[in-house]
Amino acid sequence: MTELRKDPVADRWVIIAPDRAHRPITTSVTETGDKKGGDPSNCPFCEGFEHLTPSEVFSCRKEGSEANQPGWSLRVVPNKYPALKTEGEPALHKKGLYEKMDGIGYHEVIIESPLHSAEFSTLPVNRVAETFMAARERIRFFKRDDRITFTQFFKNHGARAGASMPHIHSQIIALPIAPKSLSEEIRHAEKKRGDLKRCVYCKIIETEIGIGDRIVFKNSRFVAYAPYAPRFAYELWITPKRHCAGFEYIDDTELSALAEIVKNVMMRINRTLDYPAYNMMLISAPFASPDAGSFHWRLELAPSISRVAGFELGAGMHINTVPPEEAARILREVEL
Amino acid sequence: MTELRKDPVADRWVIIAPDRAHRPITTSVTETGDKKGGDPSNCPFCEGFEHLTPSEVFSCRKEGSEANQPGWSLRVVPNKYPALKTEGEPALHKKGLYEKMDGIGYHEVIIESPLHSAEFSTLPVNRVAETFMAARERIRFFKRDDRITFTQFFKNHGARAGASMPHIHSQIIALPIAPKSLSEEIRHAEKKRGDLKRCVYCKIIETEIGIGDRIVFKNSRFVAYAPYAPRFAYELWITPKRHCAGFEYIDDTELSALAEIVKNVMMRINRTLDYPAYNMMLISAPFASPDAGSFHWRLELAPSISRVAGFELGAGMHINTVPPEEAARILREVEL
Repeated sequence: MTELRKDPVADRWVIIAPDRAHRPITTSVTETGDKKGGDPSNCPFCEGFEHLTPSEVFSCRKEGSEANQPGWSLRVVPNKYPALKTEGEPALHKKGLYEKMDGIGYHEVIIESPLHSAEFSTLPVNRVAETFMAARERIRFFKRDDRITFTQFFKNHGARAGASMPHIHSQIIALPIAPKSLSEEIRHAEKKRGDLKRCVYCKIIETEIGIGDRIVFKNSRFVAYAPYAPRFAYELWITPKRHCAGFEYIDDTELSALAEIVKNVMMRINRTLDYPAYNMMLISAPFASPDAGSFHWRLELAPSISRVAGFELGAGMHINTVPPEEAARILREVEL
Repeated sequence: MTELRKDPVADRWVIIAPDRAHRPITTSVTETGDKKGGDPSNCPFCEGFEHLTPSEVFSCRKEGSEANQPGWSLRVVPNKYPALKTEGEPALHKKGLYEKMDGIGYHEVIIESPLHSAEFSTLPVNRVAETFMAARERIRFFKRDDRITFTQFFKNHGARAGASMPHIHSQIIALPIAPKSLSEEIRHAEKKRGDLKRCVYCKIIETEIGIGDRIVFKNSRFVAYAPYAPRFAYELWITPKRHCAGFEYIDDTELSALAEIVKNVMMRINRTLDYPAYNMMLISAPFASPDAGSFHWRLELAPSISRVAGFELGAGMHINTVPPEEAARILREVEL
């Protein structure tokens, strides 16, 4: 049983996925996800243990190597303990005040390298680019499934950031519904576009480059900066310079530039915060969003230094003890 | 420096409070906050160490005992490392796309017992009631301050739930702005009230009592239940039967009944989950909310079993592996 349920007062969806309670939490995941994490001798994400995962749905492999055999640099496999099931129709069931759907969708794992202790800051740029290419290809695949309206690509690195496996990986969840917070941001962006007569995100990038205080690094295609009102200490946003609502439209040149900037800022974060646990989240327009022309995708990076506690959960507001100008200056000044 | 800053695209406020970075994180706070936590010999929240906290603003004391001296059962003191400062005017400063205010408000700590290792499940009901009475009195006080429109009462118990001190305590933050999520819920409740011709929360309580599956415990004034779409495993909501938007209107009979039900469900949670870390959050209407008549306050209890990770941060949606019907059944069947 897996269900999508909507809270009738907070008006938000949750995924109720009891089967996921059976997934193993590898005790060898260290809190911060540093190099000491884990014994690779029985890791299902390591090369040679392909039989321990569901069959791959995408991979980057040496010419001539066979699916689900060694010879790969990246594999995408269905999550063995998925939050959603792929078969069925996402019909809405209403009973009085309560609404639910069967938990239809996809939940996949991107195994980002055969190297157990690899990390974005230590992989070559073209290997980091494979992760984003795989995400693009899977999102394009999900977009062709009429039942799916939204995908969330994300990475949990280190137990403190919610990782249950130490081997380098990220995840994609594809859903028949779009999250409320994203729909609201898009509606807000549409309104701002009306006021400004241009994309508010393009305007922000221009403003930030002009001020400079919150910029950490930029290259030909992307800007990495500490946003004006970050929820977390050392939170960074990586935004494409080209106005584009959906990550699935990223081109190959942008993929390389994105990999370069992600590797660069991860090196800075690791040097500054001593290899912290962190989350990485793609914020990209749902597939069927009427106002998506006003939206502009981004990648968010949030080191797991502070914890989400009662104030954050109650008020939905965050307390951040590191001003973004200070975080950006420290990260900008790191010698690589 | 402390500031309230608004994100121009996500349209949400954050508190930037660099001085709070200097607060000591007591390493003796255990992850779950169980009885082994902490050495009381130099705890500023213990009796006899009143000089280590700022002067109390409210207390429950033995007759004849003096402020900031032993003889108390509860003390409210300003947070020594506040997220906000009490002096100043909350003027909005706009610069281009960016909006901010000086971080005006209150940040107080309720020291809930002189006993270092006390806990809601082990304190007498009338001592638990003192916490809620103190919260009511402080909220009434903040309401008289024209600069304040919203207060958040919350409790972080155990390091995993964000507590930095092991001694039993909760906190109140009072702000010149209301959180976006709450304003939206109230707007939504107003709409539902129009459809239903009655309070949607009253209707939910009636429905839940009728179904029974998600009820954990009820008394003459309150119902404790697992909500239909909970974000967290074993999340419980405690709702007053009497329709009321603001916690500050709670009467003395309700205070006792609330303390009884909180103690009761905490005993059930501790027995089931072996004294987990947890957060408790009051969800109560802002002081100046035109639609507040449609709102109905509640107390939320969220054991910190799972972690908020990339999917939750990115999509704003939660994955919960324990259906509320199962959580409620297990908690209901605990023999006290």
